[in-house]
Amino acid sequence: MKIGVIGLGKMGTGMASNLIKAGHEVTVFNRTATAMEPVVALGARGTSSVAEACCGDAVITMLANDAAVEAVGFAEDGILSALPKGGIHISSSTISAALSERLTKAHQEHGQGYVAAPVFGRPEAAAAGKLFVVAAGSEATIADCQPLFDAIGQKTFVIGQTPKAANIVKLSGNFLIASVIEALGEAMALVGKAGIDQRQYLDLLTSTLFDAPVYRTYGTLIVEKKFSPAGFAAPLGLKDINLALSAAQDLKVPMPLASLLHDRFLALLAQGGEALDWSAIAALAARDSGDLSASLP
Amino acid sequence: MKIGVIGLGKMGTGMASNLIKAGHEVTVFNRTATAMEPVVALGARGTSSVAEACCGDAVITMLANDAAVEAVGFAEDGILSALPKGGIHISSSTISAALSERLTKAHQEHGQGYVAAPVFGRPEAAAAGKLFVVAAGSEATIADCQPLFDAIGQKTFVIGQTPKAANIVKLSGNFLIASVIEALGEAMALVGKAGIDQRQYLDLLTSTLFDAPVYRTYGTLIVEKKFSPAGFAAPLGLKDINLALSAAQDLKVPMPLASLLHDRFLALLAQGGEALDWSAIAALAARDSGDLSASLP
Amino acid sequence: MKIGVIGLGKMGTGMASNLIKAGHEVTVFNRTATAMEPVVALGARGTSSVAEACCGDAVITMLANDAAVEAVGFAEDGILSALPKGGIHISSSTISAALSERLTKAHQEHGQGYVAAPVFGRPEAAAAGKLFVVAAGSEATIADCQPLFDAIGQKTFVIGQTPKAANIVKLSGNFLIASVIEALGEAMALVGKAGIDQRQYLDLLTSTLFDAPVYRTYGTLIVEKKFSPAGFAAPLGLKDINLALSAAQDLKVPMPLASLLHDRFLALLAQGGEALDWSAIAALAARDSGDLSASLP
Amino acid sequence: MKIGVIGLGKMGTGMASNLIKAGHEVTVFNRTATAMEPVVALGARGTSSVAEACCGDAVITMLANDAAVEAVGFAEDGILSALPKGGIHISSSTISAALSERLTKAHQEHGQGYVAAPVFGRPEAAAAGKLFVVAAGSEATIADCQPLFDAIGQKTFVIGQTPKAANIVKLSGNFLIASVIEALGEAMALVGKAGIDQRQYLDLLTSTLFDAPVYRTYGTLIVEKKFSPAGFAAPLGLKDINLALSAAQDLKVPMPLASLLHDRFLALLAQGGEALDWSAIAALAARDSGDLSASLP
Repeated sequence: MKIGVIGLGKMGTGMASNLIKAGHEVTVFNRTATAMEPVVALGARGTSSVAEACCGDAVITMLANDAAVEAVGFAEDGILSALPKGGIHISSSTISAALSERLTKAHQEHGQGYVAAPVFGRPEAAAAGKLFVVAAGSEATIADCQPLFDAIGQKTFVIGQTPKAANIVKLSGNFLIASVIEALGEAMALVGKAGIDQRQYLDLLTSTLFDAPVYRTYGTLIVEKKFSPAGFAAPLGLKDINLALSAAQDLKVPMPLASLLHDRFLALLAQGGEALDWSAIAALAARDSGDLSASLP
Repeated sequence: MKIGVIGLGKMGTGMASNLIKAGHEVTVFNRTATAMEPVVALGARGTSSVAEACCGDAVITMLANDAAVEAVGFAEDGILSALPKGGIHISSSTISAALSERLTKAHQEHGQGYVAAPVFGRPEAAAAGKLFVVAAGSEATIADCQPLFDAIGQKTFVIGQTPKAANIVKLSGNFLIASVIEALGEAMALVGKAGIDQRQYLDLLTSTLFDAPVYRTYGTLIVEKKFSPAGFAAPLGLKDINLALSAAQDLKVPMPLASLLHDRFLALLAQGGEALDWSAIAALAARDSGDLSASLP
Repeated sequence: MKIGVIGLGKMGTGMASNLIKAGHEVTVFNRTATAMEPVVALGARGTSSVAEACCGDAVITMLANDAAVEAVGFAEDGILSALPKGGIHISSSTISAALSERLTKAHQEHGQGYVAAPVFGRPEAAAAGKLFVVAAGSEATIADCQPLFDAIGQKTFVIGQTPKAANIVKLSGNFLIASVIEALGEAMALVGKAGIDQRQYLDLLTSTLFDAPVYRTYGTLIVEKKFSPAGFAAPLGLKDINLALSAAQDLKVPMPLASLLHDRFLALLAQGGEALDWSAIAALAARDSGDLSASLP
Repeated sequence: MKIGVIGLGKMGTGMASNLIKAGHEVTVFNRTATAMEPVVALGARGTSSVAEACCGDAVITMLANDAAVEAVGFAEDGILSALPKGGIHISSSTISAALSERLTKAHQEHGQGYVAAPVFGRPEAAAAGKLFVVAAGSEATIADCQPLFDAIGQKTFVIGQTPKAANIVKLSGNFLIASVIEALGEAMALVGKAGIDQRQYLDLLTSTLFDAPVYRTYGTLIVEKKFSPAGFAAPLGLKDINLALSAAQDLKVPMPLASLLHDRFLALLAQGGEALDWSAIAALAARDSGDLSASLP
């Protein structure tokens, strides 16, 4: 397929690379042009405008937040105006359910397709083509996109025909991960202050009931206090919890644990944690317990 | 070995059965005598007093709470007075760190050994000899008990020489499980109200980042609203969170998520959930969001 | 002075009436024209557009939320375009600090004055000219407005020269009131379930340490479960707590009690409390404790 | 009346002094004898045992916590054994509802009267005889004690015939005060970081809706960061919130704001706040927002 990719951060670069490897004809655009170089070296065509990246069958956006997606979507020469009728916008960014809904309507009015297809997986998974794709949109459109999802991911979960449902799944998934971080943070503060070896404790957890990637990955970061460099930065954590709380508010669903996470991320940023991995909220439980070694950089 | 087992609930019965199968000479005691019948049928000797169950090399207690363990431990004809010098008390009940500490000292003064050996696993795991044993105590004593642990569990984790450390690990483990229940409860309330299929959502979670027994077990109970009969009853959930909070208070470790769980269990009990599984706290998030189908029995 | 008043709800009507009584020449505008009748009867000139209400020395806006103020402010024939150079926009609505900041800049660019002057007091206080006015803006502009503040309020508090500071004071004030409601709700649930007479308990509180209007007013509503008709409706409560949380997020100030209030208001709305007074969140503590008489209408 | 007073801390000393001034015949006991000197100088008879202080018509206990009251109450030569039949134990300490219930039964079995009569007011109010007395017990017993209450307090509130009700009122009152501290702490952190003058903000609050002693007293301590010397020390704050949570648990009343306060006090103690006034929890909101000047001593 002829496919555009807009947004070549760590995630977008991995995705574009795998699309190229799978034989698709890939055109890319990134605001900072140098970020396109690695994929251009692999065979992508670099462009200097959003519109040029919208000349194929579909265009994938993988951007930082609502504002960025809104900008490339609704701008004068943006996706809505540049994408041909029948073209598909695949929105893989972690954005709000509300923006996803606006895009759904706008693309429908322009005779274009729209699929929300956020992904689970950190940059290494994107590079390896091992993402999990969570897709929602009309059946026919999803079917058209399947070869692309196969190229970037190890499995696709089709959530339904309403695109924003995929966004809510993604946001609630990030909420669940952050919940694991908070729970581990509190448990580690407790066992740590009790003089128990934290690494041994983590081994026990992950070889019994908590034998899951998320416990191993984040548990290790917490035990080693290795919050830098950030795999997923704290401000993005706050952003995603805010988006989950916002979707929850629209649906009138109180989520007290999400509120607690909101407060934790805010405290982390207020205390100089801007550049840390989002798992650094786990250090706040230790710090509140008077553990001075838990003071943030 | 000659071994006593005090407390023949679902867990104690499974443990005693596996000790018998492994060739140990087992004497049992239970306040309600009929509960001893199944293991007597397997070859255990039933007795009518705590003291008689203390005549061997070691005695395992597997009781409901601090009060029960305190009663059999410190009573006039209790374990402390009946166990021979050099005998070992293996305390497998989920009790407070504070009581474990008292028992440690008392047994030391009586020239007896004391090992805290709480277990992870529901009744089916106890029946199958597949428990995870978390043990702490002096190295020599733990070594003496190892054949018993091998009989009841699939793996033993030795946490250190201070018995109460094992209790804190157990309590913090139950806190982590309850945290998963709360997080899933909130996430399910959100995706449910968004019209997303909850079972499909759970499949997605458990086949990606949350591929762990605890998510599968509790996620299924929550999706099916199958809170009865209770595998682990709500009042025990409250008890264990209270014990975790109590250990945390002694060590001055604030645990806001544990506090949230405390409030959830209390709300569940206040609203008639006494007989439900502890996973029923997940229904409170749905009920708070106005989901009438989430009303408790 | 020649003064416009935009927004004639219960609050705006009371304020306009007192401006007329104080001898000011008042022009009014309200989207629904009939709401202007009472003040027209008192001598105000009714108009059919925002622009016409902007022809005097100053214009007061007293509207429901950010969206309404944004609409009348930035519309093509809105306040910014209609107000003469040197005219003053007095913004008394409870709006976000962010919108107040945008208006500050916009009016400055148009050579107009801008004062944030939110008020404390329920409709009866507005009718009686007994509001408390919280004002912020340049000294000269505040001085010009003082006769107007004297007409509508019993006292003016000048908070500084940055308008949004007044909005933050107003929002934090509403947060403090909601905190009182929540605290009283929990305390009343406790003493009520203990069989203590709630009215006598309230008398004790308000004749000792809590001898303040806010405890008497809300305590009485809670004891009498008199949540309807709403003096200040629940959705406005949620709106204001959200604005406080939003200002707090911009300044990176975690406010866990505000988060709890957010969740309470959301639960109230999810359970059919749209039309109730915001003090109805107090009933949630009773309902969580299993008090069926606390079920909402 | 002939009256004993056990416990001569700041509060008990003030109370005993006013009983003497009112013409009662006062016998006192305190574990550390030197604390009795001031009241002996005023005319009290100092004794060297609990029993000697129980030889009159009634005995007042004003002690630090449950353990202290339990010790003097149930000891071999304690109040229960020493007080004559028909004598009255007036328990003014802030103790648990559970202990108050035990004392009620025990005194009844011994043919003695028992009144729970906790007080509101800081040491200065005790010295001035201006306490508020919250009393519960049988009508006749309360009537007998009224002259004593008149001597120590400015007003007596009779809560009912079940003594523990008075304890619950006292505990819920302290919960309400701590809620004010937390709410003010969060609001002050917000307005402070917004550059608003905190003292002026407090003046605004206390001259409008929050015109109550509790806001003036604690607001001033918070604005001035004057947390030392402690009028009411942080560990006592934690103790009282724990007692409130414990009474709430017995009655199955979830109190999320009380749980938040519990976590705050724990964090305060974990970070070196043992000797500070309980209002120092207000500094935690500022510290969480990155305000380094809020760091505790």
